[in-house]
Amino acid sequence: MTEQAFTRIQLNPPFLLFVGDVKEDAYAKTGFGIAQWRRSACAGQMRLSGCGVDLGLPDLDVASAGAAGVKTAIVGVAARGGVIPEYWLGSLAGLSRVGIDLAAGLHVRLADLPGIAAAAAVGRSALIDCRVPPKGISIATGRKRSGRRLLTVGTDCAVGKKYTALSLELELAKRGVAATFRATGQTGIMIAGSGIPIDAVVSDFVAGAAEALSPDNDPAHWDVIEGQGALHHPSYAGVSLGLLHGSQPDALVLCHDAARTSILGLAGYELPAIGKVIERNLDQARVTNPAVRVVGISVNTSSLPARDRRAWLEGLSHGTGLPCADPLIDGVAPIVDRLLATGRS
Amino acid sequence: MTEQAFTRIQLNPPFLLFVGDVKEDAYAKTGFGIAQWRRSACAGQMRLSGCGVDLGLPDLDVASAGAAGVKTAIVGVAARGGVIPEYWLGSLAGLSRVGIDLAAGLHVRLADLPGIAAAAAVGRSALIDCRVPPKGISIATGRKRSGRRLLTVGTDCAVGKKYTALSLELELAKRGVAATFRATGQTGIMIAGSGIPIDAVVSDFVAGAAEALSPDNDPAHWDVIEGQGALHHPSYAGVSLGLLHGSQPDALVLCHDAARTSILGLAGYELPAIGKVIERNLDQARVTNPAVRVVGISVNTSSLPARDRRAWLEGLSHGTGLPCADPLIDGVAPIVDRLLATGRS
Repeated sequence: MTEQAFTRIQLNPPFLLFVGDVKEDAYAKTGFGIAQWRRSACAGQMRLSGCGVDLGLPDLDVASAGAAGVKTAIVGVAARGGVIPEYWLGSLAGLSRVGIDLAAGLHVRLADLPGIAAAAAVGRSALIDCRVPPKGISIATGRKRSGRRLLTVGTDCAVGKKYTALSLELELAKRGVAATFRATGQTGIMIAGSGIPIDAVVSDFVAGAAEALSPDNDPAHWDVIEGQGALHHPSYAGVSLGLLHGSQPDALVLCHDAARTSILGLAGYELPAIGKVIERNLDQARVTNPAVRVVGISVNTSSLPARDRRAWLEGLSHGTGLPCADPLIDGVAPIVDRLLATGRS
Repeated sequence: MTEQAFTRIQLNPPFLLFVGDVKEDAYAKTGFGIAQWRRSACAGQMRLSGCGVDLGLPDLDVASAGAAGVKTAIVGVAARGGVIPEYWLGSLAGLSRVGIDLAAGLHVRLADLPGIAAAAAVGRSALIDCRVPPKGISIATGRKRSGRRLLTVGTDCAVGKKYTALSLELELAKRGVAATFRATGQTGIMIAGSGIPIDAVVSDFVAGAAEALSPDNDPAHWDVIEGQGALHHPSYAGVSLGLLHGSQPDALVLCHDAARTSILGLAGYELPAIGKVIERNLDQARVTNPAVRVVGISVNTSSLPARDRRAWLEGLSHGTGLPCADPLIDGVAPIVDRLLATGRS
């Protein structure tokens, strides 16, 4: 697919996934995510002495990464406290010095790490901070764009909006339907190799960023856009609403965690009923796309006893009239069935 | 009133209003606004040769401004194209050099104008860009704060949300009710001498900025918060929603322009019915304050024939059950009557 990059972050494959010397898989979730969802874009992994993690990719060093044609090394780990240990910097500088771009989603900018900017100047390589929005984002115009769009929305943060969107992209591809995952957060951007960290965009430009993220496309093409937050989230709802308006979605998939009854980290803020969440999302989505529909609910059921899972999802399905599935266990085929059945193809 | 500044822009009075040599009143709207709403904070105006505008304040030069104890000179004009003419810079640098802070809401930063940063270094004076959010804004916590809050919301941009809020503050003060206008845009900030330019805040922090803007206060005190945008605005609704959630308003006043039928500058986006706008605002405001009420509608009726104005407002009042008034013609007394009648005092 050829696309204009414009105002999106863009990482060029093939990728080298840098995991340092982290000891536990939990710290390498980003690396595992990239290896899972974009394996064909990954040339290898770089592990330092004592590393306890294996992404299942060929081990490369600076020389072999260069020889393998690696274009971008991605820091695929969350270091403790968000800080990169100093003894990792030599390897990262070495990659940068031979012309390999570096990408990371750290709290500090790559160029502010000792020796990195100098190495990038020598190698003429790029330093890509996936938490920093690209320049040139415009105010939203509200203009209707060609192509189709699906947005994953949520009952809260951390309910599987990214995972669901990636699963939907994969299921659509299996069925021969052209689809592109559109990333709105740093991890998604590293997986997709492209995107905009929407929550770091100045508030006036959030809807405009969503418009830039999913430009005009072929009439039958689906953009599957990673949602953020929730419309009733006391801290982040503005991000969610700007993303919803700018995405102009034809279809919504609601994401939920069966164990969640109140907003994560904000005791006293109970989640609204699913029906209310759907009503609010549809009401607001209609502002920029009156034809919007909800096509399914994606539920993390890991907290439920295995014997109750099926009945729980069936109950929710009876309550909402929507296909309900756990993407990790059931996949998202029932949701895609509904999407394509109700699509205007 | 003693208050902590924390994460708000703060301009220290007395003010000198700088109007350069602009020829028409329309370019000095900010200056007129400050002179109208904060006359007691204004020591004078500074006009250059050929200026066609008079704010009705004593004319001061650098020496007399210093002698008058001026603390802050405010650039109270919108120069053509948002650019300051070079021949204004000498006067501004002169003020800065004698220790008077400069405040402006330009597209460029004051420090980037030739000679200004050097002058400020000599005078140890501050350069305050009212479009630049203060540092240190946190993610919203959703914690309930003491004191009462009113937010002006709108059917669109440019429907009188700032003017209405200032009118409400004044009417409350007349009745002996403690009230503080809280500014969320650059002009409002220059009028109030304090505030946060909410649309320039990174989207993740908008609700948090609204929380910082109206901190804990006396139980009977009203913060009257300047609204921004509209919940159904395809470009800016995210800003409006974050501001609504973070403000936790006890009362809403809806602002409207009787002539407006579609979103300003976005043909094809019709305004929802007033009843729908009220419903959406109440629904979302209840997320952080279940006790929220709408207490009136403030309408710009300047487009209506004078003989129709009264009947038009009465019709709207019958349709909504709310006091409806044009703040420029009727004042906002009927709205404050409703506010205080339904208040939990």
